[in-house]
Amino acid sequence: MVTIKDVALAAKVSVATVSRVLNKTGYVHEDTKTRVLKAMEQLNYHPNEVARSLYKRESRLIGLLLPDITNPFFPQLARGVEDEIHQNGFRLIFGNSDENLDKELDYLQTFKQNHVVGVISATNDPGSANYKHLSMPIVFLDRTGEHAPSVFADGREGGRIAALEIIQRNSKRITLMKGPGHLQTARDRFNGALEILSGADVDFHVMSTETFSFREAQKRAEELFSLYPETDGVIASNDIVATAVLHEALKRKINVPDDLQIIGFDDIPQSELLFPSLSTIRQPAYEMGKEAAKLLLALMKNENIEQSAVQMPVTFIERQTTRKVDDNE
Amino acid sequence: MVTIKDVALAAKVSVATVSRVLNKTGYVHEDTKTRVLKAMEQLNYHPNEVARSLYKRESRLIGLLLPDITNPFFPQLARGVEDEIHQNGFRLIFGNSDENLDKELDYLQTFKQNHVVGVISATNDPGSANYKHLSMPIVFLDRTGEHAPSVFADGREGGRIAALEIIQRNSKRITLMKGPGHLQTARDRFNGALEILSGADVDFHVMSTETFSFREAQKRAEELFSLYPETDGVIASNDIVATAVLHEALKRKINVPDDLQIIGFDDIPQSELLFPSLSTIRQPAYEMGKEAAKLLLALMKNENIEQSAVQMPVTFIERQTTRKVDDNE
Repeated sequence: MVTIKDVALAAKVSVATVSRVLNKTGYVHEDTKTRVLKAMEQLNYHPNEVARSLYKRESRLIGLLLPDITNPFFPQLARGVEDEIHQNGFRLIFGNSDENLDKELDYLQTFKQNHVVGVISATNDPGSANYKHLSMPIVFLDRTGEHAPSVFADGREGGRIAALEIIQRNSKRITLMKGPGHLQTARDRFNGALEILSGADVDFHVMSTETFSFREAQKRAEELFSLYPETDGVIASNDIVATAVLHEALKRKINVPDDLQIIGFDDIPQSELLFPSLSTIRQPAYEMGKEAAKLLLALMKNENIEQSAVQMPVTFIERQTTRKVDDNE
Repeated sequence: MVTIKDVALAAKVSVATVSRVLNKTGYVHEDTKTRVLKAMEQLNYHPNEVARSLYKRESRLIGLLLPDITNPFFPQLARGVEDEIHQNGFRLIFGNSDENLDKELDYLQTFKQNHVVGVISATNDPGSANYKHLSMPIVFLDRTGEHAPSVFADGREGGRIAALEIIQRNSKRITLMKGPGHLQTARDRFNGALEILSGADVDFHVMSTETFSFREAQKRAEELFSLYPETDGVIASNDIVATAVLHEALKRKINVPDDLQIIGFDDIPQSELLFPSLSTIRQPAYEMGKEAAKLLLALMKNENIEQSAVQMPVTFIERQTTRKVDDNE
């Protein structure tokens, strides 16, 4: 491996001079500088990032904390973050927290020890003191809190849209599925849908799901059709839950969408691959990741942040589990 | 932030002594050691990992290179790697290569600059000089090559099993879909299936897909049923392609599995969520990630590696796109 000493030797200058050129500190004569840069190029010298980070107390690393990369919503977020920071010469240290606060704290500690220049976190506890006292730029992703800027989708509006679309398509006895209560994102979408349903001329009931897991959702879907066989529309807490409801409906030979409409939330990639494909409320996951990275990069440069809570728009993706609006005439 | 100086001051010893305790080098009197450790605990001192890595020329970071985390096969691999290394006190620097060699090289460079202690790579080019001359432990994952130990599934056997299972369930005019030719994993499963089909008493034809993307697969699935309407069994190159074939069959009101059987490859999480759910050849992705991590950790400790190419078993997962064996009697 080529070292700073090799460069100094080749350029016939001292190590300190090479260091001044590298770190753009102190005075170096223009000719000397050219000679050093040329030597670096010829020797294919890559500055030792760790040494520089120690000197400058910073690295080119950004910490990313997600609940679980095997949940299909999160790879899109991660990819958005990585693509944006990669263009800017930064790399990711990545960890899954499993919604476990100890694991989260452990990762934050590791990030610090590796001198990350910033952290992007999809924590379930944005109010935590861990973040309040973190001495580096941080952005919450898919979450929002007072201790740091954040990028998240407008879940409440998403809930409203889901309810409006299913009502407009003539569901009259609607089941609204409520996601895990400890997740702000789940509460928002639930409250948005509830707001519209309670003001509309429809019957509805609420059913809770404690997790977003497919297995639990399968059980709840069975119960749904046993308890409320008259349901003609389901607003699911996310796409995984919607998929379980769709499964159960098809098993029971219920005609979707003619006799039962289903709307999901998230628009994970496989929702398009279902048959019938799932109508859902899309969160722009990849774009959210990119935005969070942009916000963090701006914070790192001490730029003025115009908007510290970036709410991304959600949209209704009309597929085959909802009827066409015209069909209802 | 608490520094090594603060610890030295509190323990009334020199910085060099604290350093000796930290790095377990040189002689330190037992009482002194106890005093130093106590001071560290009281001050809540966490050794500066970057400084130590510079000193010892190593970090607690492992580099992981995958083609694309948004491809649903890879999050499972990544999770397996992370869970295993996390238990051992290591963390991940993570990057997507997009099967682009420049990007791959760029990441390897970054890994080096951050003094990773090892690399796990799902490269498409295991023969590359990049790996031959990499001066650190490396394990290929989901790939195999001569320059490094590797963990991969037995694709050829998987192809064989897929063909045997579909023949045993009485498909007589089979379409075998061949995945991207530049991927060793795709070639293996294709060759395994071809071996069985060519020795069996069935008609079959081969259809190539250049990528594993759903969009391209959709087009090929349309062509499949136009060109070979008599097909009564499809061995797909992976689960995404199988999903596209299933979609097209359902659109054409073909009865699955009575008139058409479909077998995928991978067993990505959503294959279970399809309706009918997809029969497929399972690669144990999470376990593969764990194995690769274990192998890398062993290499880092200079342990004797008994097996430098770990081939993981594949299994047939019987779901609803294949008939029961009894149904054929």
